Amino acid sequence: MPLIRFGISLEDILLERFDSLRQKKGYSNRSEAIRDLIRDSLVMDEWASSTLETVGTITIVYSHNTRELTDALTDLQHHYHNSIISALHVHLDEHNCLEVIVVKGKAMDIKTIADRLIGRKGVKHGKLTVTTTGKDL
Amino acid sequence: MPLIRFGISLEDILLERFDSLRQKKGYSNRSEAIRDLIRDSLVMDEWASSTLETVGTITIVYSHNTRELTDALTDLQHHYHNSIISALHVHLDEHNCLEVIVVKGKAMDIKTIADRLIGRKGVKHGKLTVTTTGKDL
Amino acid sequence: MPLIRFGISLEDILLERFDSLRQKKGYSNRSEAIRDLIRDSLVMDEWASSTLETVGTITIVYSHNTRELTDALTDLQHHYHNSIISALHVHLDEHNCLEVIVVKGKAMDIKTIADRLIGRKGVKHGKLTVTTTGKDL
Amino acid sequence: MPLIRFGISLEDILLERFDSLRQKKGYSNRSEAIRDLIRDSLVMDEWASSTLETVGTITIVYSHNTRELTDALTDLQHHYHNSIISALHVHLDEHNCLEVIVVKGKAMDIKTIADRLIGRKGVKHGKLTVTTTGKDL
Repeated sequence: MPLIRFGISLEDILLERFDSLRQKKGYSNRSEAIRDLIRDSLVMDEWASSTLETVGTITIVYSHNTRELTDALTDLQHHYHNSIISALHVHLDEHNCLEVIVVKGKAMDIKTIADRLIGRKGVKHGKLTVTTTGKDL
Repeated sequence: MPLIRFGISLEDILLERFDSLRQKKGYSNRSEAIRDLIRDSLVMDEWASSTLETVGTITIVYSHNTRELTDALTDLQHHYHNSIISALHVHLDEHNCLEVIVVKGKAMDIKTIADRLIGRKGVKHGKLTVTTTGKDL
Repeated sequence: MPLIRFGISLEDILLERFDSLRQKKGYSNRSEAIRDLIRDSLVMDEWASSTLETVGTITIVYSHNTRELTDALTDLQHHYHNSIISALHVHLDEHNCLEVIVVKGKAMDIKTIADRLIGRKGVKHGKLTVTTTGKDL
Repeated sequence: MPLIRFGISLEDILLERFDSLRQKKGYSNRSEAIRDLIRDSLVMDEWASSTLETVGTITIVYSHNTRELTDALTDLQHHYHNSIISALHVHLDEHNCLEVIVVKGKAMDIKTIADRLIGRKGVKHGKLTVTTTGKDL
């Protein structure tokens, strides 16, 4: 993809603090760090306003001892199988499981799936993480 | 304050999307929009890690009908008078008040004051907003 | 307003941790702490979905040395005077000012005003805090 | 785990709005919805203050066309193999990959790993999601 180069100006003290933060975060150069800030602001805007297709990950922690929860979660995921791309299951300890579900679709639909999963009895904690298809970014 | 000018490079499609978002948000030029992204990341880092002096605003909505709440809030604010710079009181309707309290101090202390205020019986909603002293930004 | 009393059940270990957190935050009893969690979830939902009237506070930090910024900010606030209820100005130091602006209106309109103010050249940091009119809460 | 039952009181209008939101979110009863609010506040507190062991998921979207990125990400993950439990890789399209990495450890260490991964050249978007080991929740 063609790169475009342009100049920006920053107060010296601000640039100094920015350089120190970007090194702490492991960015190899200023362009890369600024690109990430820009992309994050675009992703936020995408999720706030749009009916565009996007991607989210739903993380849930639950106890597999809860009667019928595992079945219910599987049913829910099959119900939304058109949107759910993939899932990762981790055994945290004897009782607790973590599952990450990757979902693609409209922001509003992804939120509905997240609500349905997080609201199930037995799910101890759940979070929807908003990310992106990566297209045009 | 001396401005330093340097070049960054961006994929053309990313630059296009960024230009359109920054215009929507009313930024007059790219430098200004990028500066704001940088400053916001510095403020986040300040609040996450530091014992540096910083500034926050605490917004609370409450009903002044709650017996003794107004007195209690005033007492609390006086107790922390060294940190509380100023406060704004707004009458939202016959029953509901909004108060914004500007606090200066260490992140941890500001959080404690926010917890104390938001936790009072009768306070319907409260939020701590993290901002900055503006120094070196 | 009539209070309704009902029972809920919690795992003992969860209740213990909740009691300890709520005491740390200064809540006098469980009902009060739970009410605040509930109200906060309602406010989040209000802002995510609605065209209902709501309230936000916009916090900006800027340097009054920036040529014409103060005038521009005043102009902007007058342009939106129907929505802006009140504003508080704080002198942080010789150069830096903090201003908190209380805005009432539809979520989308409040966001637009926040973007316009935060996007001005010379505004170093800005945040929109979402709160509520307090009605029915 | 033993359940403890206790009573709480809520204003009738607040209870009505809460019931409607919890049904929208698919919670089968009030206890379950309130438990989730409580658990979420405990997780937030855990991440804000602690050196306790916790769990996070790091979601990154990147183009596998970026030279050597895949190798670099694999190296990074091996470097932190003591903390990284598992990873899920999704092919979003011809160019874009999404990877979710599940990490267990102290909040501060998880943040460092997230910074290192998100800061790599070629990673278009990254987010750390804070969750929990599920113990005592």
